Amino acid sequence: MAKDMTLLWGSGSPPCWRVQIMLEEKKLQGYDQKLLSFEKMEHKSQEVLDINPRGQLPSFKHGNIVVNESYGVCFYLESQFKNQGTKLIPDDTDQQALMYQRMFEGLTFYDKVAAVIYYEYYVPEGERHDSAVKRNKEALDTELKLWEGYLQKLGAGSYLAGPSFTLADVVVFPTVANLFRFGLSAQRYPKLGEYYGLVKERPSVKASWPPHWLENPKGDEDTLKDV
Amino acid sequence: MAKDMTLLWGSGSPPCWRVQIMLEEKKLQGYDQKLLSFEKMEHKSQEVLDINPRGQLPSFKHGNIVVNESYGVCFYLESQFKNQGTKLIPDDTDQQALMYQRMFEGLTFYDKVAAVIYYEYYVPEGERHDSAVKRNKEALDTELKLWEGYLQKLGAGSYLAGPSFTLADVVVFPTVANLFRFGLSAQRYPKLGEYYGLVKERPSVKASWPPHWLENPKGDEDTLKDV
Repeated sequence: MAKDMTLLWGSGSPPCWRVQIMLEEKKLQGYDQKLLSFEKMEHKSQEVLDINPRGQLPSFKHGNIVVNESYGVCFYLESQFKNQGTKLIPDDTDQQALMYQRMFEGLTFYDKVAAVIYYEYYVPEGERHDSAVKRNKEALDTELKLWEGYLQKLGAGSYLAGPSFTLADVVVFPTVANLFRFGLSAQRYPKLGEYYGLVKERPSVKASWPPHWLENPKGDEDTLKDV
Repeated sequence: MAKDMTLLWGSGSPPCWRVQIMLEEKKLQGYDQKLLSFEKMEHKSQEVLDINPRGQLPSFKHGNIVVNESYGVCFYLESQFKNQGTKLIPDDTDQQALMYQRMFEGLTFYDKVAAVIYYEYYVPEGERHDSAVKRNKEALDTELKLWEGYLQKLGAGSYLAGPSFTLADVVVFPTVANLFRFGLSAQRYPKLGEYYGLVKERPSVKASWPPHWLENPKGDEDTLKDV
């Protein structure tokens, strides 16, 4: 079905996972794919650089067309396969507007999560400060309260932009899954916990669940235990 | 024409400028608007918080619909006013794919510019490091070479995704304009210089040129002189 598509990806990376969920939702299974290792620096290999001069995953090709940015792939596939699989942009104006708003807030959400989880990866040893770590955690806390409030307002069983699963869920769910993998408390954030429970059972999400999470179901659960 | 729209904005801010260009391109002039001052912290005023709990500009309302994220506003307006003003998403598959790719690379581009220009604004005094400043400048240099290469490949007179002006230009041009405002050398980056010269003459861009740039045509031209 999707033999003319190639995806190079890394396990657990939210940008890669977005694309994988998207391909499942649009019934584009059967694409060529290769799991690469960030630890072994395979995202800087020639194979990746040939598609993606930034040396990043995901790297995605459809025939001769290259789209590597995860949000870009989502928009591209929804546009090219509008009438195939799940319709991911609602016609309803209010829902559509909310979807766009949440999608792009989702980038800030991911940045704030990454600033806490990957602090030591991003910041060289001699430049680390306890004050920055504290500020990043406080910013994440503020961010989490925003999303908890959004879900609260929409009511039980809702997706991020209303009653249907949309592009907002495709791009934001991998961030939410990483939060719980790294020990976020569903007691403290019950609406995010419910949302996580709802979407993780979705076939597209189950089919693309990070393989190293399956092998090792417990993550670094101490990382976010005090957030 | 667009009396049911309200935009709260700040002068020179790329996210605000994107929305202003978008409104011009879609022939939505006549909207309610209010210029607020970042220096006076007016983006944290109740007036903004009522629309945007993040206390950020732009803050945008269309009737009862709120979309504050600049990329979200662009997608929303293009979808709602598809047949009005400039068509900003090309039908051609290759151009459309390139547009999506460049739009989202545009976020990285802006982040790398901001990390250099606003370093002292973002990083508290006790956490600043020469090594970080140097790394940020090198990252910006690498980023600029990528965009210079993209434009080189497309040829003279091209927009970011090919022969027509698209959403990619709406969102990325304000970043490019800031680069030159802060002293980027058009000798060193001639293709970016040409692109800047092309798009700054566009009516939508002229109509939305930052008022404090008009008052004070010289920016902090030393900031990027050695990039």
